[in-house]
Amino acid sequence: MPSYTPPTKDLQFVLQDVLKVSQSDTPGYADLEADFTAAVLDEAGKLTSQVLAPLNAVGDRQGCVLENGVVRTPEGFKDAFEQVKQGGWPALDLPEEYGGQNMPYVLGTAVGEMFSASNMAFTMYQGLTHGAASAILAHGTDQQKATYVPKMAACDWTGTMNLTEPHCGTDLGLMRTRAEPQGDGSYKITGTKIFISAGEHDMADNIIHLVLAKIPGGPEGIKGVSLFIVPKFMVNEDGSLGARNGVACGNIEEKMGIHGNSTCVMNYEEATGYLLGEEHKGMRAMFTMMNEARIGVGMQGLSQAEVAYQNAVEYARERLQGRDVTGDQNPDGPADPLIVHPDIRRSLMDQKSFVEGARAFLLWGAQLIDRSHRGGDEAAEGLVSLMTPVIKGFLTDQGFDMTVLAQQVYGGHGYIEETGMSQFARDARIAMIYEGANGVQALDLVGRKLAQDGGKHVMAFFEIVKAFIKENGDNEVLKDDFLEPLKEASKHLQAAAMFFMQQGMKNPNAALAGSYDFMHLFGHVCLGLMWVRSAKAAQEALDAGASDTDFYKTKLKTGRYYMARRLPATAMHLARIESGAEPVMSMASDEF
Amino acid sequence: MPSYTPPTKDLQFVLQDVLKVSQSDTPGYADLEADFTAAVLDEAGKLTSQVLAPLNAVGDRQGCVLENGVVRTPEGFKDAFEQVKQGGWPALDLPEEYGGQNMPYVLGTAVGEMFSASNMAFTMYQGLTHGAASAILAHGTDQQKATYVPKMAACDWTGTMNLTEPHCGTDLGLMRTRAEPQGDGSYKITGTKIFISAGEHDMADNIIHLVLAKIPGGPEGIKGVSLFIVPKFMVNEDGSLGARNGVACGNIEEKMGIHGNSTCVMNYEEATGYLLGEEHKGMRAMFTMMNEARIGVGMQGLSQAEVAYQNAVEYARERLQGRDVTGDQNPDGPADPLIVHPDIRRSLMDQKSFVEGARAFLLWGAQLIDRSHRGGDEAAEGLVSLMTPVIKGFLTDQGFDMTVLAQQVYGGHGYIEETGMSQFARDARIAMIYEGANGVQALDLVGRKLAQDGGKHVMAFFEIVKAFIKENGDNEVLKDDFLEPLKEASKHLQAAAMFFMQQGMKNPNAALAGSYDFMHLFGHVCLGLMWVRSAKAAQEALDAGASDTDFYKTKLKTGRYYMARRLPATAMHLARIESGAEPVMSMASDEF
Repeated sequence: MPSYTPPTKDLQFVLQDVLKVSQSDTPGYADLEADFTAAVLDEAGKLTSQVLAPLNAVGDRQGCVLENGVVRTPEGFKDAFEQVKQGGWPALDLPEEYGGQNMPYVLGTAVGEMFSASNMAFTMYQGLTHGAASAILAHGTDQQKATYVPKMAACDWTGTMNLTEPHCGTDLGLMRTRAEPQGDGSYKITGTKIFISAGEHDMADNIIHLVLAKIPGGPEGIKGVSLFIVPKFMVNEDGSLGARNGVACGNIEEKMGIHGNSTCVMNYEEATGYLLGEEHKGMRAMFTMMNEARIGVGMQGLSQAEVAYQNAVEYARERLQGRDVTGDQNPDGPADPLIVHPDIRRSLMDQKSFVEGARAFLLWGAQLIDRSHRGGDEAAEGLVSLMTPVIKGFLTDQGFDMTVLAQQVYGGHGYIEETGMSQFARDARIAMIYEGANGVQALDLVGRKLAQDGGKHVMAFFEIVKAFIKENGDNEVLKDDFLEPLKEASKHLQAAAMFFMQQGMKNPNAALAGSYDFMHLFGHVCLGLMWVRSAKAAQEALDAGASDTDFYKTKLKTGRYYMARRLPATAMHLARIESGAEPVMSMASDEF
Repeated sequence: MPSYTPPTKDLQFVLQDVLKVSQSDTPGYADLEADFTAAVLDEAGKLTSQVLAPLNAVGDRQGCVLENGVVRTPEGFKDAFEQVKQGGWPALDLPEEYGGQNMPYVLGTAVGEMFSASNMAFTMYQGLTHGAASAILAHGTDQQKATYVPKMAACDWTGTMNLTEPHCGTDLGLMRTRAEPQGDGSYKITGTKIFISAGEHDMADNIIHLVLAKIPGGPEGIKGVSLFIVPKFMVNEDGSLGARNGVACGNIEEKMGIHGNSTCVMNYEEATGYLLGEEHKGMRAMFTMMNEARIGVGMQGLSQAEVAYQNAVEYARERLQGRDVTGDQNPDGPADPLIVHPDIRRSLMDQKSFVEGARAFLLWGAQLIDRSHRGGDEAAEGLVSLMTPVIKGFLTDQGFDMTVLAQQVYGGHGYIEETGMSQFARDARIAMIYEGANGVQALDLVGRKLAQDGGKHVMAFFEIVKAFIKENGDNEVLKDDFLEPLKEASKHLQAAAMFFMQQGMKNPNAALAGSYDFMHLFGHVCLGLMWVRSAKAAQEALDAGASDTDFYKTKLKTGRYYMARRLPATAMHLARIESGAEPVMSMASDEF
């Protein structure tokens, strides 16, 4: 069975050494002293590694079962959920007035990685609840907030998001679910939603569904979509639960992975719903949830890569097979461990350098969100809005690839379900699809975010890279191994953006045909930037006489690997982009 | 449910237009007239698409069940196997004296792609039988050939290969299975073998296991390994079946995919075995089977990409979602089909250009094997020996990636098992692992094949590329779009080989750290070469006034895509290779 070791030291390195959170003037960050964040991470580490991780394989094997309209979660999930609730984890970064602890999102994200790595399917129950609560906080009336958020912050009630219908996923304008106004402020919701994660289960007293639907007579397409709160059980004035609402789970999907999470077909039959936010502005309200969810999904990609990597390293250290070509490393044993072989190391270094770079990238994104939400920093908001599709798309694509690499280290044993390596890959696979398939992320990045506010945010990004390179130009440790490759990769990104600007005017397909490559090119530059910053932080710690020199030297080695071996992908992506629309668009649809 | 359409026209294009098989002087090729190969492919196409393809999902869902030592294959497998046998397909390219039809391997390979694409797990039963029969043909005594091969050619008896043990896979020198000589020419085999595909099942009267084991007192390690024939039922002098031998299936593995094939733990307890080939030369005999199996596994990678691609195209044509940014393509419908979107096309073109290039590459490899086996052409043998790890490693890595891309086209529906897209990815995943994990293929390529016979074979490969470019230098259609990119990519491959030669002397790790990238770099150049040859063939057909101009023009478009969008990967692989051993090897084993 696979194991999970909380990477608390690595998380602390990013929070304290790279992002220097406790030195930031963002409101609430002064609390984030190293001792405090270490204590929080340690506690979360215990719970996730000791309680949630052992249930990961159980959830995969047993899945969720629908019987007479009731969904049974896998053995042990309910008890574990109680422990999570009692620890107050779901509300870590929610406001105190609703029972939360008001911690910065950056800390919630660091903790979230561990939850997701230890048991992705399980963690989705609370993750979706958090997203739904955030949407109610952002768009709800005071009464709605008071009614739902405290219960959701405690995870006594969980939440869902209902967008997809059988005939429409990305293109929600085609939606058929209807919301009939009842004259008393409520609506009757009727329709079928599919792929509803945690749509029905046995771990909460109530489930608060956020449902997109169309009010008859409203505008056509996406502009006529509104968002509704539809509780599974009606909530009485005093907060107690009333009658069952007209919503039921019709089926649970058989999926490739995340079996521990119930993916439901939800049937709404004149279910009572309450408008959340304004009429016909449902997409705007839903995007509060979607943006948070996209960051969370990027985290899932990273998290599955992390836990798969941990197990691959362990296996590579223990499994004896073949000999080091430069001389036996285990002369008294029958063979050397796998980890002596260069190609195994190539694979492990790909994984390690991705995971650690991605972690820094994700937490930087979370820091920007805090600056925006807590500090009102509009530049930070613009930057993280630009990078959200990169976090989602790049981290999940690469995260999945890394789980496949980790599985490969196990050879034939990786293909056997018993070792758990297949589950990491199967679970990670969904992250490339949901909350906007990665192709849609690329479209969002190139079609919308890049040119947003006159291209100001991408300019700001380039400025950050340029300024860093300039400021550190005479740093001997960084110069050749780090700054030069970053400069080169950043040039490729700029050239690609320029190509889009010039071509996109004449032919939007020239930009769209390169969108996916641009997302990956951007992702590599972001991880390059994070590695350059991490290398600087590691060197500073070494210069300051840090006691754990091996730890910091390892950061430098891992960073050098990323710069030398991973960043060269940027030239390939640029070449693909610059080949333009013609190779992609030349075929008639029936010629494929 | 997914469908499968036999790509007979595309296969004919490669056989007749690109490889021009019927014009070759290789013995047996004169039979391969276009009408004849078309008839054979049509028949195989009917059987695979109508009988085997519908059973693919059944096999995945039901899997194989072990009860009281007997393995039950999925519903319908047995009947389908009878139809395959009656069609004489398993023996298509086996010698006539053993009941085969003595067709060239190139035709067997073209047919094999369809079998594998329609139902990979099912096809393994006959594929392994073919490999075992080939090993007996190559290394068996006349009596062994007479006893086993006719029955195996008919698939009345099936075959297996038994290498792996719980503690050793790649490093077979660690093997513990023992073969005690009995003085009468037979041996008693005792030990446990794992991951034995088709190790036990209910579709054949007998199963002929080829088992690697050590004869006590022989040389240590891999040099003391011998190969044995161990029938499930003893075979009497008259060919009838006798007593059950001491071999039994102890367990069936729960795997990520290929559920329709029984992957068995095989327990040998003093089972009677007969030496195949010479004592202690077991690896040599097994490699007859392994080399054939590696080509076959490369074919699996391609085949799963093909069938997944077919379904992705169909879905992209039918699923209405979003609008073409350049103007509605389906103005009367609620939305345009997915296929109008540039990023969907990018994905489909990646898949299509891989599948068609890979098909040509695989069939070229098969043609070289025919030249070697039937024509005694040593240069062909050397070349295909060099390319075998590339066919296995590159086609399965890329093939898997393509199934993931195809699955992605389905969005959320691709993650639901019902659509079958997950199965293609889960089935394709094993091809990267078995018959030598792809890292081992890369090691074989760089550590052994590259320098074999003084590097003569890789030189021959470069000569082929160079000669083609020179001969066609004034071909206006090929020049810019095809020859230039191939020249560039081939330069990268040469530079990488040169780097290995220079560095490898001082530090073998410098070559080994780049081996995986070299395998992919080589694979891209091979597919580039195949596309250049295919483009030339297509243009010749157009110039000759072929009636189906769209078909040939599509080949040119697809080839241009590969050259413009896929070949740029070679520069990245070269950069990774040239970064040398240091970034890969700098970490101590406990620093990971």
